[in-house]
Amino acid sequence: MIGIFDSGIGGLTVVRSLMEQLPGYDIVYFGDTARTPYGTKSAETVVSYSLENTEFLLKHGAKIIVMACNTASSVASYHVAETYDVPIFEVVTPATEEAVKRSRKLTIGIIGTRATVKSGIYEKKIKAMKPSSRVYSVACPLLVPLVEEGWLKKPETTMIIKKYLHPLKVRQIDTLILGCTHYPLLKEKIQRKIGKKVTIIDSSIAVAEKVKYFLDTHPEIDHVLGKKGGFRLFVSDITDQFEKTAKDTLKRKVFLEHVKL
Amino acid sequence: MIGIFDSGIGGLTVVRSLMEQLPGYDIVYFGDTARTPYGTKSAETVVSYSLENTEFLLKHGAKIIVMACNTASSVASYHVAETYDVPIFEVVTPATEEAVKRSRKLTIGIIGTRATVKSGIYEKKIKAMKPSSRVYSVACPLLVPLVEEGWLKKPETTMIIKKYLHPLKVRQIDTLILGCTHYPLLKEKIQRKIGKKVTIIDSSIAVAEKVKYFLDTHPEIDHVLGKKGGFRLFVSDITDQFEKTAKDTLKRKVFLEHVKL
Repeated sequence: MIGIFDSGIGGLTVVRSLMEQLPGYDIVYFGDTARTPYGTKSAETVVSYSLENTEFLLKHGAKIIVMACNTASSVASYHVAETYDVPIFEVVTPATEEAVKRSRKLTIGIIGTRATVKSGIYEKKIKAMKPSSRVYSVACPLLVPLVEEGWLKKPETTMIIKKYLHPLKVRQIDTLILGCTHYPLLKEKIQRKIGKKVTIIDSSIAVAEKVKYFLDTHPEIDHVLGKKGGFRLFVSDITDQFEKTAKDTLKRKVFLEHVKL
Repeated sequence: MIGIFDSGIGGLTVVRSLMEQLPGYDIVYFGDTARTPYGTKSAETVVSYSLENTEFLLKHGAKIIVMACNTASSVASYHVAETYDVPIFEVVTPATEEAVKRSRKLTIGIIGTRATVKSGIYEKKIKAMKPSSRVYSVACPLLVPLVEEGWLKKPETTMIIKKYLHPLKVRQIDTLILGCTHYPLLKEKIQRKIGKKVTIIDSSIAVAEKVKYFLDTHPEIDHVLGKKGGFRLFVSDITDQFEKTAKDTLKRKVFLEHVKL
């Protein structure tokens, strides 16, 4: 199976993209809803949670791992890749590659959680590819709770997005990376506020394309993945709100299985 | 020592009140910052976290326990009191007693997290004391992240508070319980939006008065509590933001000790 984890259910945007890119592939998802969010926590804590989540997915038959969480990808992908001997995908690299490819002026903005921005990983990766690029990042810690509350169309959300994007608008970025799996749900509002000429990079789409390309070029690994359309959705805590968000994101009936790590 | 726990550092408002009411008493605090917040999680998960937190405080010398978290108080105080043979204080009962005492029309509003409001505990307790009272509660899940971001004076926060309080204003409540330890930091804004005639009940003050009264009337327990002004502040995760909020709330230098549960 393809194993995917996230701090909560935001990572289901990646599942959605994978189901589009690789229809029929068996997927096992783990959302750490009992300890969500990760974006406000320390790197040390996020590393230890990420190792536990990966362990859980491997025990449930995952043969490759997708870290569908920008915070975990930013601070823990190295530790996970060092610890386990399976292909590990994270959302930062595909998004930065896509941004560098599409930005004409190489003036790139990133929005993400406090932990993601603090890690500086996007800047490092973009500068390693294109040393002349200018990179600006802004932490937007209120967007995750706003999405989780379903306040997608509220005027308060618009005001807060405008405030967060202001410093990036001033810098005249031409490309903006949505550095958090929750943000694609606010994509239209973000596009309107940053300006329609700015290219928006959605990391959930970029990582799904990366996984597809990898499997196309690694038939020996593609071969061991089940393709019966199976989908298991494990969470460490269940509430009505989590169930609702999961259903809304995947636009299908979902069955949440509760596990304790 | 007096043992206090909270889902994070919001409960330090209770420490502040206790230090005013009982100056010099030794205090040990545990903030579960690695798993914060509790207010969006299920009752089952909050019960299991609350038992672990209590166990930790008892091991560190606590002789009485204060649950400085409305969510934990709402869904887990019964389980904690059943499991441990020490005096357990929670923030719901003192706040409801105070509200019933001070409300003239017995038309009482409560604001809290999703989990607290879902538990219905405030309504049950108020109705048990005064069956004729009218009680209205509203979940305000965005206020905790707004406080944690330090957006105490921002216009967006004012708009969101106004939206949340609207149904309570329509019901013409005369008393409003701040059913979350984070909310006292927004007290002025809340007072302005709900109207200056409405009495606001701050549960952090109410519980500190209750503990003081209990110790005055139970000298055998007061006797075993240290009074050397000791204060230990344990957290399950440390970030700059947690340190800053802790310092701002207590208005003194703080030293956070990191522990893994």
